[in-house]
Amino acid sequence: MSIGEDSGRAAKSLRALLNPRSVAIVGASHDPKKISGRILAYLHEYGQRYGFRGEVFPVNPNRDTVQGLPAYPDLDSVPGEIDCAIVVLPAERCPEAVRRCRERGVGAVMVFSSGFAEVGPEGDELQAELCVAAAGTRMLGPNCLGVVNLWSGMTATFTTALDQLELVPGPVAFVTQSGAFGSMIFAVAQSLGLGLAYLVNTGNEADVTAAEVIRTVLEDERVGSVIGYLEGMRDGERLIEAGLRALELDKPIALVKVGSTAAGARAASSHTGSLAGEDAVFDGVFRQLGIARARGMEELLDLGQIFATGRRVAGPRVTVVTISGGAGVLVADLCHEAGLTTPEWAQEWQDRIAGQIPNYGSARNPIDVTATLVAQPELLERVLERCAEHPETDVIAVVLGNVALLEDQLVAALIRAQERTTKPVVVTWVGGSGRARRKLDGSRIACFSDPGRAVRAISALFQWCQRRTDGLPFSQSPSDPERRRLGKLLLRPAMDRPERRLNEQEAKRLLNLYRLPVVEEGAAATAEEGVAVARALGFPVVVKILSAEVAHKTEVGGVRLNLRSEDEVVVATAELLARARRLGAGQPRVLLQRFVAEGLELIVGARADPCFGPVVLVGIGGFLAEVLSDVAVARAPVTAEQAGELVDRLRGRSLLGSVRGGPPRDRSAVCDLVARVSEMVVELHPLLAELDLNPVIVGERGAVVVDALVQLAPSGDTSASLA
Amino acid sequence: MSIGEDSGRAAKSLRALLNPRSVAIVGASHDPKKISGRILAYLHEYGQRYGFRGEVFPVNPNRDTVQGLPAYPDLDSVPGEIDCAIVVLPAERCPEAVRRCRERGVGAVMVFSSGFAEVGPEGDELQAELCVAAAGTRMLGPNCLGVVNLWSGMTATFTTALDQLELVPGPVAFVTQSGAFGSMIFAVAQSLGLGLAYLVNTGNEADVTAAEVIRTVLEDERVGSVIGYLEGMRDGERLIEAGLRALELDKPIALVKVGSTAAGARAASSHTGSLAGEDAVFDGVFRQLGIARARGMEELLDLGQIFATGRRVAGPRVTVVTISGGAGVLVADLCHEAGLTTPEWAQEWQDRIAGQIPNYGSARNPIDVTATLVAQPELLERVLERCAEHPETDVIAVVLGNVALLEDQLVAALIRAQERTTKPVVVTWVGGSGRARRKLDGSRIACFSDPGRAVRAISALFQWCQRRTDGLPFSQSPSDPERRRLGKLLLRPAMDRPERRLNEQEAKRLLNLYRLPVVEEGAAATAEEGVAVARALGFPVVVKILSAEVAHKTEVGGVRLNLRSEDEVVVATAELLARARRLGAGQPRVLLQRFVAEGLELIVGARADPCFGPVVLVGIGGFLAEVLSDVAVARAPVTAEQAGELVDRLRGRSLLGSVRGGPPRDRSAVCDLVARVSEMVVELHPLLAELDLNPVIVGERGAVVVDALVQLAPSGDTSASLA
Repeated sequence: MSIGEDSGRAAKSLRALLNPRSVAIVGASHDPKKISGRILAYLHEYGQRYGFRGEVFPVNPNRDTVQGLPAYPDLDSVPGEIDCAIVVLPAERCPEAVRRCRERGVGAVMVFSSGFAEVGPEGDELQAELCVAAAGTRMLGPNCLGVVNLWSGMTATFTTALDQLELVPGPVAFVTQSGAFGSMIFAVAQSLGLGLAYLVNTGNEADVTAAEVIRTVLEDERVGSVIGYLEGMRDGERLIEAGLRALELDKPIALVKVGSTAAGARAASSHTGSLAGEDAVFDGVFRQLGIARARGMEELLDLGQIFATGRRVAGPRVTVVTISGGAGVLVADLCHEAGLTTPEWAQEWQDRIAGQIPNYGSARNPIDVTATLVAQPELLERVLERCAEHPETDVIAVVLGNVALLEDQLVAALIRAQERTTKPVVVTWVGGSGRARRKLDGSRIACFSDPGRAVRAISALFQWCQRRTDGLPFSQSPSDPERRRLGKLLLRPAMDRPERRLNEQEAKRLLNLYRLPVVEEGAAATAEEGVAVARALGFPVVVKILSAEVAHKTEVGGVRLNLRSEDEVVVATAELLARARRLGAGQPRVLLQRFVAEGLELIVGARADPCFGPVVLVGIGGFLAEVLSDVAVARAPVTAEQAGELVDRLRGRSLLGSVRGGPPRDRSAVCDLVARVSEMVVELHPLLAELDLNPVIVGERGAVVVDALVQLAPSGDTSASLA
Repeated sequence: MSIGEDSGRAAKSLRALLNPRSVAIVGASHDPKKISGRILAYLHEYGQRYGFRGEVFPVNPNRDTVQGLPAYPDLDSVPGEIDCAIVVLPAERCPEAVRRCRERGVGAVMVFSSGFAEVGPEGDELQAELCVAAAGTRMLGPNCLGVVNLWSGMTATFTTALDQLELVPGPVAFVTQSGAFGSMIFAVAQSLGLGLAYLVNTGNEADVTAAEVIRTVLEDERVGSVIGYLEGMRDGERLIEAGLRALELDKPIALVKVGSTAAGARAASSHTGSLAGEDAVFDGVFRQLGIARARGMEELLDLGQIFATGRRVAGPRVTVVTISGGAGVLVADLCHEAGLTTPEWAQEWQDRIAGQIPNYGSARNPIDVTATLVAQPELLERVLERCAEHPETDVIAVVLGNVALLEDQLVAALIRAQERTTKPVVVTWVGGSGRARRKLDGSRIACFSDPGRAVRAISALFQWCQRRTDGLPFSQSPSDPERRRLGKLLLRPAMDRPERRLNEQEAKRLLNLYRLPVVEEGAAATAEEGVAVARALGFPVVVKILSAEVAHKTEVGGVRLNLRSEDEVVVATAELLARARRLGAGQPRVLLQRFVAEGLELIVGARADPCFGPVVLVGIGGFLAEVLSDVAVARAPVTAEQAGELVDRLRGRSLLGSVRGGPPRDRSAVCDLVARVSEMVVELHPLLAELDLNPVIVGERGAVVVDALVQLAPSGDTSASLA
């Protein structure tokens, strides 16, 4: 099914942009050197060359013909339906033009003009006008480079990247928020032989977003994977939808997301907030959905290339076939660094190829066929056949170089070998003219110029396949309306406070509702009450200031640990009550808790992310939090099993195991706790802005929440959800 | 000064290999398709093309002429001096041929034949014969591809990499242990326009090693930097020499060192040993010397390229000039990840260029000149001029793409801009035919195809320049012969024990000699003695088994912490004495120590590395050691300041600072301690195989060694040094 056909709401709504049957260009110039002329020139010239069957209508009130085509003075005089209208006028004239498009009933509109939000506040206003003008009509841009559909031969764009390219359609769709960089990437992809289905640049995203385009192009049956370049995102929900659909369809997505370090500088409202910077959330959600995160341009294309092969891997076992032992060692190193393995072949399998390889080569894996290959090129095919048969090989990685004279022979052998197996054959072709690479890519054999790049691509493919077998990345358990109602009631006390926080005792009532294990405790307003509570809890105890006004109690000296006698409790209680009074607490009280001395400190938290909504996080706590900055984030809700994946992502995960002969910690208690927190943040979204359980102490049996901070969203954001 | 002239012992000894005045080929074939014929064909053909002025003598008893040159039946009949003899005969005939070379008095010999150590045990023997045959004559190989000297036009090799290349001499020398992979890298370097001075392949290194070649080529005045590919190394000392000389001459070195993950699997003799795997030692020594460690082939070439420019950077401040805002964001991200900065330009400096850039561009840094550049290519030069003047710009990073039609103009502008400044101008040219890249590289402007690769290269250049300003990487303090003598005396007790270890008390005597702070302690053989010692130390105390036979006391339950009373000491002492007896201690004793409860646990150690000799290491200790695997290694001796650099390399370095409002730890005490340990391991080298201070507890004031393990080298290794 292609996007031209009916494929659900999302696809239909963008169909007119991605695969229009007719295109009008409002502001088309006769001069093909001008941007407003180049669009028509491209649509016309490339349309003829690549078989675009749609109609093209230049709209220009000043001429009878434009570049040889009949011109129309306005949209209304264009005959028949207009599927897509391109607006390329000075910015201030765009809103009016878009309004006319809407009134004419065009299917969709692209605004290429710049001078909107990207130029600052004055442009914001114009962009708002544009949105109002478009109203219900879908709009791409403004400040965008448009759409190239390589299957239909439609080039609705003015990027000069098209000038020197042979456009090759293929199974990879490319979506970019950056126009200029995107068209560079597009050009490189095409010159490398990476066939693309689409180039879509969303520009300022006044309406249509990159996530939405990704979601839509996935439905095109000719699209096997999507690569993209993102700078920012406001509709994370749509990206999640896209990611889920991609998993369902087995169409991998690879994205560059920039702006990762700017996030570090952002001031955060609390400790948990700063741990889970914007970038950690993107990272977490990407991992959850199996979206491969490329760190740069070439890596993005490398991933596009391996995904374009359509091959899948059953496991991490790579057999390396190399013309150079040295390159083999390097590839083995890189495989292990990337989470892949290069297991040695069993002797019987070695024997099947050993006779054909000189004695200074190797049949162990890496299989070093040596430069003898130059004299006996047929050797490659024989070895590859054995690799295809070898049951413990999941991926065949071939390293070649300095074989220019045998190029045709070796390329043919690789293509034949790939045809005879379902395993991916991934080639590193060092040096040469690039011709072999293009030929292999054309045959859907991923070919790279550097062994490290090949290995990273294989690793990404393996991770995708693993993610697919793991099943759904989110919990499917429905939320509980009654619990939700009670939870909101428990949040009420914070509503009227300026800081919109619960105090610790109130917070723990909320935790109890979600059956989160909370340390035994009791409040006291005097030293005498404190002693009574301590006696009931049993010694040793902890005493803390109990006040919504005091968020970081440790930092202000508001916590006394490990009090072993009534006398110690009397002194500590009196001191802390006095301190709380000085810090502005109206009716100072303290909280007494059983002292949990033994266990691993974790932080478990949640927040309402502005892009992705409710997220949950888990990290190493205590003094290590500062050292490790070790936190994993996921979109909520997650099951306990999925929470386990989060825990496994922590660098300090081994702290949950047996350390120095001690007993292992209760990992499953942590997973349960994280899962319940994730249910809470979903049910109380968006009222609950932030939840910070710090520390959660994990013992040999069970985990217990010792301190909790609950922060509500600012009142403006949440009035609706309080109804 | 070139290697043709006298430049000291090391250079002279390899001169005949790297820059021979005459070459004899023993086993030269008439058939240029055979390896033994190809060598002559290359030497002759490329010699003519690239101006090799030396004489070439084919030695072949079966023919009068070989490939048109007069042939000689044997070496003795060759007239005049033979500077370099190439042996290319079946392996078993090589030792005899090499012997004749030596007897004929050739300057040096290269053995290209394979069938030696690389094929296994049977080849080892033949290689030993070869060494004996060569005796005092320097020998390259066997199993090597030889030497290409691009300045003298000499191609003593049979690699087909030469077939399709235009050989371009340049300032980068390339040394490789792998023949096949090395020649692939060579070919790529040449096709990218990276001018090389040398290609040298050392093969099996029966005599001449890669480190030695690196050391030698540095002396060539036409060599500005060295890149290399290493698989293993036995003469680390020589690499250190090379590294020091490189720092002195300001000629950076970049190396790929493979085999990094194999080291992880290697069984190690103790905890410290496993922390400081072979790869960590390479990494440590490389950092110490400022040797850039490339992680793959393309990265190696990228570093070669930026070093080839000869430019140096004064600081980390990068100004990005980009045709695409999106690419600018990516570069800024990547800079920050790589330890560089992209500070925003001051308003007055922005004003100087703002007028020339459209309002949807930016003058802040990244400077986004936008696609307007396509219409006004002169804009680039004007902006680059401002960058050159801008005092807070250390590096100018330019990102271009989709500018094929303006290639010549932009390349010329970049070259002019680079000529007018001493700052590096580093270009990312996305896409295109590669022609611009070759032109820029030819003008010594580093040009990359991907922004991330450009940034990593800039970062490596910056790190080299920083390393240079840091001064010598080793301590220059002379060792103390008297202390050395006493130290050896203190090691004597371990000499006659099968496990060759000191017990804890003996070990600490050695620490005292080196003025290392040791926790107060005393030994006891009975419970009564234990109580007396404890009383003298003051409570609380620790009791441990004191025995050379028991290395890992904690694991066998041989340690009791935090004993607060005489009764506890009596019980613990009695129990541990009994346990020691069961574990095989002849005269069991225990050690009592003051219990140091507060402080950060570090591991400080040292060992005799088989490749680099005495090394010192520091790591995070306690239970975190297992979590963080956080250790930094350096070749000893280091000063306290240099030890500080080691500490700063630890991921857990912040644990030394103020954690959660606590007092900072005594960092300078740690640095002193590491420096003294480094002196010890140098003075007692190679007798002292391993020293393991674990834990060292670092408090607010001072650091104290709580436990120590001293392991001597096996007796065979050390008899000499005991004299």
